[in-house]
Amino acid sequence: MNYRLKFFDKKVEFLTLAQILEITGASLVQEVDLQEKIYDVATLHSANKNEISFLSAAQYLQKANESNAGFCLIDAVSASKIVQKNMVLLINKNPYCAYSQIAAAFYQEKKPKFSRNFIHESAQIGEGSIVAPTAYIGASVVIGKNCVIHPNAVIYDNCEIGDNCIINASSVISFAKIGKNCIIHNGAKIGQDGFGFAHNNGVNNKIIQLGIVEIGNDVEIGANTCIDRGAIENTKIFDGVKIDNLVQIAHNVEIGQGSVLAGCSAIAGSAKIGRFVQIGGACSINGHITIGDGAKIAGMSGVVRDVEPMQVVAGMPAIAIRDWHKMNAKLIAMLKGDKKNDS
Amino acid sequence: MNYRLKFFDKKVEFLTLAQILEITGASLVQEVDLQEKIYDVATLHSANKNEISFLSAAQYLQKANESNAGFCLIDAVSASKIVQKNMVLLINKNPYCAYSQIAAAFYQEKKPKFSRNFIHESAQIGEGSIVAPTAYIGASVVIGKNCVIHPNAVIYDNCEIGDNCIINASSVISFAKIGKNCIIHNGAKIGQDGFGFAHNNGVNNKIIQLGIVEIGNDVEIGANTCIDRGAIENTKIFDGVKIDNLVQIAHNVEIGQGSVLAGCSAIAGSAKIGRFVQIGGACSINGHITIGDGAKIAGMSGVVRDVEPMQVVAGMPAIAIRDWHKMNAKLIAMLKGDKKNDS
Amino acid sequence: MNYRLKFFDKKVEFLTLAQILEITGASLVQEVDLQEKIYDVATLHSANKNEISFLSAAQYLQKANESNAGFCLIDAVSASKIVQKNMVLLINKNPYCAYSQIAAAFYQEKKPKFSRNFIHESAQIGEGSIVAPTAYIGASVVIGKNCVIHPNAVIYDNCEIGDNCIINASSVISFAKIGKNCIIHNGAKIGQDGFGFAHNNGVNNKIIQLGIVEIGNDVEIGANTCIDRGAIENTKIFDGVKIDNLVQIAHNVEIGQGSVLAGCSAIAGSAKIGRFVQIGGACSINGHITIGDGAKIAGMSGVVRDVEPMQVVAGMPAIAIRDWHKMNAKLIAMLKGDKKNDS
Repeated sequence: MNYRLKFFDKKVEFLTLAQILEITGASLVQEVDLQEKIYDVATLHSANKNEISFLSAAQYLQKANESNAGFCLIDAVSASKIVQKNMVLLINKNPYCAYSQIAAAFYQEKKPKFSRNFIHESAQIGEGSIVAPTAYIGASVVIGKNCVIHPNAVIYDNCEIGDNCIINASSVISFAKIGKNCIIHNGAKIGQDGFGFAHNNGVNNKIIQLGIVEIGNDVEIGANTCIDRGAIENTKIFDGVKIDNLVQIAHNVEIGQGSVLAGCSAIAGSAKIGRFVQIGGACSINGHITIGDGAKIAGMSGVVRDVEPMQVVAGMPAIAIRDWHKMNAKLIAMLKGDKKNDS
Repeated sequence: MNYRLKFFDKKVEFLTLAQILEITGASLVQEVDLQEKIYDVATLHSANKNEISFLSAAQYLQKANESNAGFCLIDAVSASKIVQKNMVLLINKNPYCAYSQIAAAFYQEKKPKFSRNFIHESAQIGEGSIVAPTAYIGASVVIGKNCVIHPNAVIYDNCEIGDNCIINASSVISFAKIGKNCIIHNGAKIGQDGFGFAHNNGVNNKIIQLGIVEIGNDVEIGANTCIDRGAIENTKIFDGVKIDNLVQIAHNVEIGQGSVLAGCSAIAGSAKIGRFVQIGGACSINGHITIGDGAKIAGMSGVVRDVEPMQVVAGMPAIAIRDWHKMNAKLIAMLKGDKKNDS
Repeated sequence: MNYRLKFFDKKVEFLTLAQILEITGASLVQEVDLQEKIYDVATLHSANKNEISFLSAAQYLQKANESNAGFCLIDAVSASKIVQKNMVLLINKNPYCAYSQIAAAFYQEKKPKFSRNFIHESAQIGEGSIVAPTAYIGASVVIGKNCVIHPNAVIYDNCEIGDNCIINASSVISFAKIGKNCIIHNGAKIGQDGFGFAHNNGVNNKIIQLGIVEIGNDVEIGANTCIDRGAIENTKIFDGVKIDNLVQIAHNVEIGQGSVLAGCSAIAGSAKIGRFVQIGGACSINGHITIGDGAKIAGMSGVVRDVEPMQVVAGMPAIAIRDWHKMNAKLIAMLKGDKKNDS
């Protein structure tokens, strides 16, 4: 489901190719009608022939060649390796920065509709739900039945929350759809901007984050944990996931059904965590990698590449846990050898 | 002191053995009167003959054999190793999950008593204390003399706070008793559920957390730091402890007098930190381990086993800091040898 | 610029040397007029001849010898190594603790001026700025034009915020001056006490933190990130810096123009981060070290010593990233050798 229009204002129905070339300073290598209409931005994976995407790094070249995007912002070197003939290539030194300009030309965040009331007149609160006296509930929020919204919780405009949810104190929910029976603990922050900047000539250009956070049923989000919304598509937390305190979930992360993440872990952008994965405390997971179903990540590990389903890993960089124990034993042996030589 | 009844409603005075067998599906190996009354849940360490405990992992077998618990949920293999004859064994494949069912049969959290006022009518605020206009103070809260409760702080029903405390902005205090002269910094979250789930057939069953957080005198808790309440017994922070920002203290941790924890550290469940321990920034401490009095943990260390009193450790896994320096030197030597060979 | 008098009350114009000796129990080794007036506390680097500083550790001896401070609290051993003849030495076993006594004799935090209103009568809100109904804005706050202050944000007395800033929900800003076009994300906590204690005879004595947080233009501070104010001088975040979620910035850290810090990193006290530095996720940076301009710190690194400009480092302790990859390869080779021997 696409929630984008619920949370963002689309400023124009379409941009012409000519307009996009002007905004970005990109150039063409093919002969194309400059009046062609481009209706939206999208990822290489999801874009259709009326949409524009971008290639941010050569490592995603294959995705570009498999993409159905009609238009693609790309650097000159990568462009020479595109075999996909139906894609109009817009050549630019900094395609990521050019994308950020197009995204901002299409969209802006809806302005918050503050009223004088703590609970906006247009919010819908389900039967049996109670709202504490200092909670704030924004415009067009929809809250299900039998929920409890605790003091100083903030639920922003247009968010949806299912039945039987507990939204604890000082938590903030924005750009989000949350299922049934969820518990959002004290101070959890859900739906703020993902951390996306395109560096250009000494300036870090902010990239409008057009996704939301989708949270399934029976999910628990720990105290002061942060979940950023997606950059183009959504950040997704599936049913039954349990996340502990002070965990960072970056934009476009997906966490599969029933997975459990202990405290202080950091999941970098676009990492895909499978179903029933267990992640110990204080782990770090690199961006853009995949952790297979049923894998276990020992506490304090740093995972820098894909983990196979059911694999158990430890260490930094993480390796099979048996190897990690063996390596530690060898290192200690090396150290003791040294001690013997010293004496 | 037992604060359980202050924060939780006990739903039944007792359950009979027959009721417990029905709730959990557990079976008996001894001949016992099914009408025996069980009055409470407790840890193996604290349970008496009228109470039920559980053995969650074979590693705690000795604790079971030393326990005075009258009743114990246990798996069949562990049960065969119990030599303690006064304990009625309730055999179950998943004793932790069975415990969670019994705990939920005995107790539920008291419902918050929201009124229309930011300061509940039944709260007691000591002489000389001031409360900011947007702070929330729940029912039956008792606040001592000369405290300052800052804007958007939330203090939940039944909490007690001693004299001369400063409760800063956006902090949340629930299920807690706090001593005198404490400073709770901006956004600290104290007393939320510990992270406890019993996995069973693809479902992560939440375990009601029946302990509170006890904080002594002269304690300082950093900004956005989280301290979870205990699972059965209490999480305890003793006098004079100073904790920096963004630290995670899991359920049933104990931190001894005068210990100092720098920012971004993570202390896993049931770890026992001694007196005057110093923990550097960004450390991780495994669950269920003991750090002796006066020990020092260098910043960025991962402590996976007990640390002796006065010991200084570093690294991940942490070892004596002298050995850690030596090991780093050997690794660098190994690397340089390699470089020489390359050239 | 010195903002100290804006946020702190100076209790006395000056203290005499006699008073300082009495407060600290320090002794003199030179013949000096005990009625000499001391007007302020300062760092060794910034102190002038009418001010008092301190030497907390022998490693800063050179700074003491280069200092223009008229007075210096110092231990006896270090005092014997001072060649600077214009400095009155006050000998004390625990100079850091003695400093804390003097600082507290000079200064106290101004008491917050809570009124009945969520927006204090004396606050100045610029044209076009909007304030959500549950936000709190303290006395003498100055907010620029076209800002949005979101629900449950707290801005304390005397803070200044430039034009076009977005202060998101549940963030707390105190002891701070913020430039133009900044975004403070949900739950960020700016300006609380740095973590400073002087241990003495089993007591951790709190050291009043007399600096503020200075934030430039075009800065973004992530959700639940914490930035402590300085101990004596200010914590400084320069123009264009972008900081992700759950980052800890300790007192007196400086982060140079255009630097980008990914989530969950921890920057210890007095670290100086250069311009256009990139710090990956979950990194830790030691206190009192310098990261040169344009350096890159790979995610999950622990930096324990200075990093040269443009250098790229990884690992814990961090080394040149090429060396880190090579070392990992050697360790894996060592492990595989072991495996071969096993089979």
